[in-house]
Parts: sequence; structure tokens; C-alpha cells
Amino acid sequence: MAATLNQEKLKSFIRDIPDFPKKGILFKDITPLLKDPEAFHTAVALLAERFSDSGVEQVVGIESRGFIFAAAVAYELKAGFIPVRKKGKLPSVTERISYQLEYGEDTLEIHQDSIEKGMRLLLIDDLLATGGTASAVCQLVKKMGGIVAGIGFLVELSFLQGRDKLKGFEPHALITF
Amino acid sequence: MAATLNQEKLKSFIRDIPDFPKKGILFKDITPLLKDPEAFHTAVALLAERFSDSGVEQVVGIESRGFIFAAAVAYELKAGFIPVRKKGKLPSVTERISYQLEYGEDTLEIHQDSIEKGMRLLLIDDLLATGGTASAVCQLVKKMGGIVAGIGFLVELSFLQGRDKLKGFEPHALITF
Repeated sequence: MAATLNQEKLKSFIRDIPDFPKKGILFKDITPLLKDPEAFHTAVALLAERFSDSGVEQVVGIESRGFIFAAAVAYELKAGFIPVRKKGKLPSVTERISYQLEYGEDTLEIHQDSIEKGMRLLLIDDLLATGGTASAVCQLVKKMGGIVAGIGFLVELSFLQGRDKLKGFEPHALITF
Repeated sequence: MAATLNQEKLKSFIRDIPDFPKKGILFKDITPLLKDPEAFHTAVALLAERFSDSGVEQVVGIESRGFIFAAAVAYELKAGFIPVRKKGKLPSVTERISYQLEYGEDTLEIHQDSIEKGMRLLLIDDLLATGGTASAVCQLVKKMGGIVAGIGFLVELSFLQGRDKLKGFEPHALITF
């Protein structure tokens, strides 16, 4: 119940920015939530709490906005942090995955030595939109022998049905539009 | 004393990657430290502890690797988090600053409404190299009326003398090479 009240309050810190990044898109801006010390702390604590019994060893964060919540949740859970980055940014040997965007495709990389067989990982990102990015990262983690022990988002845009791409993972979102 | 021992141990988690991002550069890779739960937790806690008496209201993080430590330190200090991003990434009205790189220049942006006059800000980044980026962000914050209450880095490459560009701010680094 307390969590529900908190989640309603958190929602009020997300603001709409029309026509960003391009005309016709209503962007959900999380920076007012980040800037409010209580809202930011509550959001991180609630995300971490949701997965505190999941035996999480590592939290995976996706460049770049995804690093914000993933790193803070990793700290709260006393887990490690594994960055997933855009092509060419990680310095050592990587595994990579390419996935479709609305127009064209994108490639993400993770260090080959970051995931050990049977390791339990939590994926934390700020936004679940179409689910393409999160789904690609889950595939990558599984291909490397890791176990996706949970997926958490700050915001879910449910009308984009990204949840359908993450079947079997039961993603958790703090705020839903 | 405990802190010093911890810092020596932390240093052992930074690995050298030769010829990254280009030939002749010995890259300091922090991902082994991020991945070790105890090392990551200790590093964030030590950075936060150093500034716990500085009256920090907001922690400023620089895209994208800088988000990792800045967000976790913000969480530990119960402060807000303000992202500094590359050009065109922030959705609302921004202030921007351009600064020189070794070759060419780069531009960073911050939301205009993120900083209030007299607000006390802590800049946290993973690496102090030449100091160009941190110095540009400090100028931007001051121009907007904010007070740089502290600057903290995970790693300082002291032979690049970035500290000289941050005179008056007394930057703190956990690990020095």
C-alpha cells in the first residue's frame, strides 16, 4: 500500500516534452524525478526492494540513461554492475547483439568476461517502450550463460506493448502510462 | 587508515588495456571494479563519505560512464541527480558549453531549470585525465549560479595534470596513477 502511494507520487515527477526527439512524439522526461532527492531515493529503493529476494549477483545497465538507475540499484543491493554499451565503447573483448529499431538497427556490446555461467543478473533500465533493447540484452545475457533473475523499469509505456517482447521475464515497472 | 588500505585494494581492480581507443594509449578499464560487488560498493561509499559534510543538494554526472558513480553517490548522499549530456540528448531547454579536446571540440548540455541560484553541487566522474571535461562542467554550473561544493573521481591519471585545470576546487580521487 505504501509502495502504491509512493508510485502515484513518483508519477507526478515525470513531465511530458512534446515533439522530442522528433515531431509527433511525446517524450517522458525523467529529469525532474532525478533532481528531487526524495523521489530519486524512493524510486531506487523501491526498485531494489522488489528484487531483494532474487539472489541478484550483478545488475546490468544499458548506456547511457539506463546507467543511472542500474548503478544506484546495484549499490543498494550490494551487487556488481555490468555496463552494456554502444558499439566500440568497451575496451576489452566483447559479445555483441544487433536488433531492429523503428528505422534501421542498433548494436550493443558487453564484455565477454563479464558474465559467468549460471550468474544471476538483474536488468534495470529507465524506460520500457517497445521492448526491443531490453529483449536484445536478455538474449545476449542468456547466450553467454547468464540467468535473467529480474527486469525492472522506472517507467513503462504500456500502450507500446513492450511487455510482449519480454514474455517469461515478468518485467516490473514502478510507473505505468 | 582503513580508507587508505581500501584504496590500495581498489586500485588492483583497474586493468590496463593497451591501444584503446587508439594505438599508443594505455586505457584504464574500470569494469573489473564495477563487477566486483565489494569493490563497487566500497568505492561509492568512500566517495560519498568524503563529501558527506559538504551540504551537497545535487550530484552532477557526465554522460555516459560518469553516470555510474554519480548516480550511486547521489543515492548514498540522499541528494538529487543532474545529468550533463552530449548535444541534443536532453529534451528540455538547455545551457551548453563547448570545450577543446585533443583534436576538435565537444559540446555538453545541462537543463536550464536543473540548477537554482546558490545550489550546492557535487561533480562525480569516473576519470580525471586532462581535466577538460570537468573544468567545462564547473564553468557551466557556476555560470548558472550553482556552487561547486566538491569534485570527486574514481581514478586520477596524475601525469596528465588535469588537477591544474581544476584549481580552487580541490578535486578528490580515490585511486591515483
